[in-house]
Amino acid sequence: MSKIQIAKAKRLRSTPYTSRLEQQGLTAYTIYNHMLLPAAFEDSMEDSYYHLKENVQIWDVSAERQVEISGKDAAKLVQLMTCRDLSKSKDGRCYYCPIIDDQAGLINDPVVLRINENKWWLSIADSDVILFAKGLAIGKKYSVNIVEPNVDIMAIQGPKSFALMEKVFGKQIRELKFFGFDLFDFRGSKHLIARSGWSKQGGYEVYVENTNSGLELYDYLFEIGKEFNVKPGCPNLIERIESALLSYGNDFDLHDNPLECGFDKYVNLDNDIEFLGKQKLSEINASGVSKKLMGVKINLDRINLSQAIEITIDSKRVGELRSAVYSPTFNQVIGIAMIDKPYFEVGTKVNIIIDNVTKAGSLCNIPFV
Amino acid sequence: MSKIQIAKAKRLRSTPYTSRLEQQGLTAYTIYNHMLLPAAFEDSMEDSYYHLKENVQIWDVSAERQVEISGKDAAKLVQLMTCRDLSKSKDGRCYYCPIIDDQAGLINDPVVLRINENKWWLSIADSDVILFAKGLAIGKKYSVNIVEPNVDIMAIQGPKSFALMEKVFGKQIRELKFFGFDLFDFRGSKHLIARSGWSKQGGYEVYVENTNSGLELYDYLFEIGKEFNVKPGCPNLIERIESALLSYGNDFDLHDNPLECGFDKYVNLDNDIEFLGKQKLSEINASGVSKKLMGVKINLDRINLSQAIEITIDSKRVGELRSAVYSPTFNQVIGIAMIDKPYFEVGTKVNIIIDNVTKAGSLCNIPFV
Repeated sequence: MSKIQIAKAKRLRSTPYTSRLEQQGLTAYTIYNHMLLPAAFEDSMEDSYYHLKENVQIWDVSAERQVEISGKDAAKLVQLMTCRDLSKSKDGRCYYCPIIDDQAGLINDPVVLRINENKWWLSIADSDVILFAKGLAIGKKYSVNIVEPNVDIMAIQGPKSFALMEKVFGKQIRELKFFGFDLFDFRGSKHLIARSGWSKQGGYEVYVENTNSGLELYDYLFEIGKEFNVKPGCPNLIERIESALLSYGNDFDLHDNPLECGFDKYVNLDNDIEFLGKQKLSEINASGVSKKLMGVKINLDRINLSQAIEITIDSKRVGELRSAVYSPTFNQVIGIAMIDKPYFEVGTKVNIIIDNVTKAGSLCNIPFV
Repeated sequence: MSKIQIAKAKRLRSTPYTSRLEQQGLTAYTIYNHMLLPAAFEDSMEDSYYHLKENVQIWDVSAERQVEISGKDAAKLVQLMTCRDLSKSKDGRCYYCPIIDDQAGLINDPVVLRINENKWWLSIADSDVILFAKGLAIGKKYSVNIVEPNVDIMAIQGPKSFALMEKVFGKQIRELKFFGFDLFDFRGSKHLIARSGWSKQGGYEVYVENTNSGLELYDYLFEIGKEFNVKPGCPNLIERIESALLSYGNDFDLHDNPLECGFDKYVNLDNDIEFLGKQKLSEINASGVSKKLMGVKINLDRINLSQAIEITIDSKRVGELRSAVYSPTFNQVIGIAMIDKPYFEVGTKVNIIIDNVTKAGSLCNIPFV
């Protein structure tokens, strides 16, 4: 942690839960989509990691903002922005979709919710997708309406999330399939709930549109969650790197393409659908990628990464470390690195210079677990 | 200040100056364009305000990122995005330009630098203008290249900035007119320097492309600046509100139009140029605005605003306070507020509820000084 404070302002938007969180032991924020995203509580990151893997946590992930695209050309615009074939998509389902530009550079990697053929929500990572969508729609003269609706996501994550949510919403919430969503009633208010979330420990995301009902639900979950050892939490760096949940802006950005990031199964080239960057992706697919995201294990017992760190072999730069954390599971530092061709082979020995000391590491596949 | 830390990560980009600043007493950051922007040093905001008004400060404003638009259709695309008539613009000049969408909603308010007819830099406020520009260019099939170049701005602000900069760059830097820019030599490296900056105290912005030379210049300015009492600094909330330098995301956003924000002189409707939102702006211009940014003075001796606060008259909501600070000049809190029609008249008495206590205020014109 930097020990440097965050200077609050209206521009760094608060969420409906902010004042509650600050009374619940929140100690650090990050900023995501111009909004406060909790990043640490009084418990250490490692304690919170074990807690998440064994219990249940409530996360304020309001910063996962929605871009709502509705209207006659909504489906066409959403498809234009992603290399994933959505022609067989169904209402009530979530789709993880790389959004790319005409050069196949990654703009975002939202979870796309198909509410219906003419109304979609893009639950976005940290970039202003709304501006890209607006620019495209204006330029193409599409008949769409594009807004950021008043939706603040509350995530319930961890193995005990199922029992906790059943206690509130009944047995039918157990029947929701992974990446399915439906409306569920809480004291007379309907909430869109998806079985999803930014951990691999299982759980739900409540897309809160009725703020007052959401706050009541938040309080109620803590009240009845005591038997499941519920705690406030946030996306956990150890858990997300072990699971290789990639982070836009950290692990990849506009200078990387989906094939370099291992998104191959979301790159659908053999079809007639129209999307940006299709030709470029076909060329890259034919010639092969020139760099690739890999896991790396490093002989270190702590790290604090705030910018990319060079990775070398015999003093030659072969890539860069983009995310890293000490993993208690592996008893060493693990990280996600973009590695140049031809060095992106599992088992390749590399060096990483940290605080002027050269450390040894080796490349591996992701996810780590 | 919130006393809550900022959790660093690669996604919140460091600047070339970050490590230096943290040794120079930096205590708080904000995030701006996905980048660290210094927000406070060991000196209090008030001490820094007086220092800025009397001496000279060096600011790391790398977070003012550039969107570079070049190519055959560059001028056409830049004009399409702004309601300001750029048909008579000149090379080597800066232009403050509201960027709006087709509904006249504000997307950003950059300073636009015309390098030449086919190469422009948009020095942006906090939103991903690059994505809007890319979307439009792709949709319109314009022949342009749009990138974020490696430019990190260092601002030299305050009345003694002129003497300090003359000591480095010679007499000709004094001849630069307000919002003019040119190339100046520092130890063999050319730097684009504009007479501009986010204070009304005078000064320059160095658009550093050669990072190593920029770091040398940074150190040199502190070395030779002792006689001018140079200090590290950052945009100062007191100074910027007194001067009514509006802040995107704080004072206005996508839900406001340029006429509501007092940008009338940058709204050019009587011409043949094509820009987004022109018809909408003409309609608004004809019917008059339904809300307007005003100054407000409040009988309070401190405030810490982190979200909009309701403004009322006889318990009826008439607007919201968007930025506010205690001003030692006025010996009370001053702020910037969006006020509904017909209440946006100078002298109107209003109420603001802060910490459950109703405080009296009155509306005034901006700037305050």
